[in-house]
Amino acid sequence: MLDGGWVSAAAAVYMMHADCRRVQPECVSEVHSINCGHSNNRMSETRRVTLGQHWRLSGRHILSGDKHVEAFEQKVRASFARQQFMTTLGAEMASVGRGAVEIRLPFSLELTQQDQFVHAGAITSILDSACGYAALSVAPAKAEVLSVEFKVNLLSPAVGDVFVARAMVKRSGKTLCVCTADAFAVKGKEEKLIATMLATIIHLTPK
Amino acid sequence: MLDGGWVSAAAAVYMMHADCRRVQPECVSEVHSINCGHSNNRMSETRRVTLGQHWRLSGRHILSGDKHVEAFEQKVRASFARQQFMTTLGAEMASVGRGAVEIRLPFSLELTQQDQFVHAGAITSILDSACGYAALSVAPAKAEVLSVEFKVNLLSPAVGDVFVARAMVKRSGKTLCVCTADAFAVKGKEEKLIATMLATIIHLTPK
Amino acid sequence: MLDGGWVSAAAAVYMMHADCRRVQPECVSEVHSINCGHSNNRMSETRRVTLGQHWRLSGRHILSGDKHVEAFEQKVRASFARQQFMTTLGAEMASVGRGAVEIRLPFSLELTQQDQFVHAGAITSILDSACGYAALSVAPAKAEVLSVEFKVNLLSPAVGDVFVARAMVKRSGKTLCVCTADAFAVKGKEEKLIATMLATIIHLTPK
Amino acid sequence: MLDGGWVSAAAAVYMMHADCRRVQPECVSEVHSINCGHSNNRMSETRRVTLGQHWRLSGRHILSGDKHVEAFEQKVRASFARQQFMTTLGAEMASVGRGAVEIRLPFSLELTQQDQFVHAGAITSILDSACGYAALSVAPAKAEVLSVEFKVNLLSPAVGDVFVARAMVKRSGKTLCVCTADAFAVKGKEEKLIATMLATIIHLTPK
Repeated sequence: MLDGGWVSAAAAVYMMHADCRRVQPECVSEVHSINCGHSNNRMSETRRVTLGQHWRLSGRHILSGDKHVEAFEQKVRASFARQQFMTTLGAEMASVGRGAVEIRLPFSLELTQQDQFVHAGAITSILDSACGYAALSVAPAKAEVLSVEFKVNLLSPAVGDVFVARAMVKRSGKTLCVCTADAFAVKGKEEKLIATMLATIIHLTPK
Repeated sequence: MLDGGWVSAAAAVYMMHADCRRVQPECVSEVHSINCGHSNNRMSETRRVTLGQHWRLSGRHILSGDKHVEAFEQKVRASFARQQFMTTLGAEMASVGRGAVEIRLPFSLELTQQDQFVHAGAITSILDSACGYAALSVAPAKAEVLSVEFKVNLLSPAVGDVFVARAMVKRSGKTLCVCTADAFAVKGKEEKLIATMLATIIHLTPK
Repeated sequence: MLDGGWVSAAAAVYMMHADCRRVQPECVSEVHSINCGHSNNRMSETRRVTLGQHWRLSGRHILSGDKHVEAFEQKVRASFARQQFMTTLGAEMASVGRGAVEIRLPFSLELTQQDQFVHAGAITSILDSACGYAALSVAPAKAEVLSVEFKVNLLSPAVGDVFVARAMVKRSGKTLCVCTADAFAVKGKEEKLIATMLATIIHLTPK
Repeated sequence: MLDGGWVSAAAAVYMMHADCRRVQPECVSEVHSINCGHSNNRMSETRRVTLGQHWRLSGRHILSGDKHVEAFEQKVRASFARQQFMTTLGAEMASVGRGAVEIRLPFSLELTQQDQFVHAGAITSILDSACGYAALSVAPAKAEVLSVEFKVNLLSPAVGDVFVARAMVKRSGKTLCVCTADAFAVKGKEEKLIATMLATIIHLTPK
């Protein structure tokens, strides 16, 4: 389990602080340490949670009437709610961490290509939104984001009940933010990696 | 007018043979000469047509009950018709040449992101389908195509009445086909370049 | 001759003004019209030149002791001369137009990979420098450029006597500039397309 | 420590079996489980090693006259030794695991661009070779590899004493292999992420 590793680490970072319903400053700095390349991973295994747990828990989190949602999460969720295309696709914002966002998309025939796999464009759409919102979650309070460019590798046909896009900030600079995202097809309890994105997002600050 | 150059050349190649309703062998070899990098461009200016003309003419062409549609075009249009996601978006196959495909997508609020621009994912979807079908149009008769990967640069906000994706085969090999595509926003008689794609498509031949 | 089309158009734009040894303002605006997507290509065929001609002529141009070199060209050539890595590779700046740059790299065994083709990294290096300098040639006088990201498709093995990278500005915005570039292997009088790049460059202005 | 996570996991997988000087079958399957997206990461923290350790250990490993080098590693190292361009750059193969390769490149003025940072092309070259050899390390015994395409994001100026490219197989299919790689600048004991690559490699099997 290599590639999934950082995702589950992200989940862990996010979940460690689930009790207090806040993302603590130390958590944030840990998330940002993705940039440094050092291996000072001291999280114990017991704190690790599976992605499935993360996803379900954060799902409940959204519905729980929680008053302590962070400003960055409110901003991300408000913007996502204005993306009519996400509604058209049937996509939902599953979880929002500092620098880590997850969007899910249930299968529908209306999303398919000629072989009844979900169209690469639909998968790319949730990957792109996930990257954009991961970038927004670490942006200054008044900044907006815009996708500059992205590359997607399609790794397996998009066959499944639900598709999940998980994006992470790889490096956040003054102007540009680079994110990676993976898309998984979920079938029962199985998740399969079907696509991966490397994206550049620009922070736009109103003058 | 540089970048549009090759597109209008493609339109010209396609239109030159519009009378006889066939893409002649010499046309095909000319299209394939994109790979060789030589400058044997002997098309006279009088044969050149604007992209707008191309698009309108080829639009009429589709509706004209023409019996002489080439096999590759039939194959491409039949496959496109099975892409339910294109119907969901409201996209139409505007023209199919050998190695050159155009898809158009009328604006709809249902396609928009948070600023009411059309979502990058929707524009990417028609760029991806256009590249895939450009690759299919030069593939062996029994081959199918699948997108391996693509990169999109978003150059301007997608604001317009109609969006047009124009894809061209850049190099077609035994297994892999590389295509480029541009997306334009059309507003009245104006076209504006809004995105560009560089894509790798694989030819799959059933055994 | 499709893809080469815009390159030869670029050559033509550049060469049209070769007599007066200046890139005229109308030329510049024509180069910039790459962004608009319109098909107002009114250059007559007689003004077109082959890429080979372009390359040879501009080669002479460099050596001719010409006094009328534009400021943007001086800036580009001065920066290129400071790129020690280009010297290490043996690469030369062949021509510099407004928004269009050509770098050539003679074959050397020292550049090869395991099959004695030139290494993709060496080809990418001249493509990257060509894109960067194409972006620099249209940047404000005091601005510098930095590559943000690029994608390269390797289309054919790099076998030849000389390798040529030709870059063009696709869209130049306030902060970011998107360029495309093609690499060709030259063998005698033959040129073969071997690679293509789509790149994002950032304009940095000192405060 | 998020992004580095999978790299250190790779190091751990590789190092766990360092005693017996073999990559065990179970190790290999673990490396391949990068594709599945599940979080069955059961490696204890005590088995984790830092990247620095990994690198130093594997460095020693190379020099130790070890007789038990796996066939895939021999194949990778033999091919790397034939890449004259790597010698020209001064690059060394630091470690070869199943699906995980590390190449290091000491700083030299001869590799620099106009600001005396190492040229993006030089960094891309070691990233590309690292991805290619990661793909080769999981390929069938007689297969060769060729880069199809890659995208690089340049995240920070390449300033340091040594540059390290670490590549991992993300997904290996019948024909195509997708790899990710990160490049780090090493300065004393500090490592800084400076670039990231997403690459597609093709497996070529002689008939």
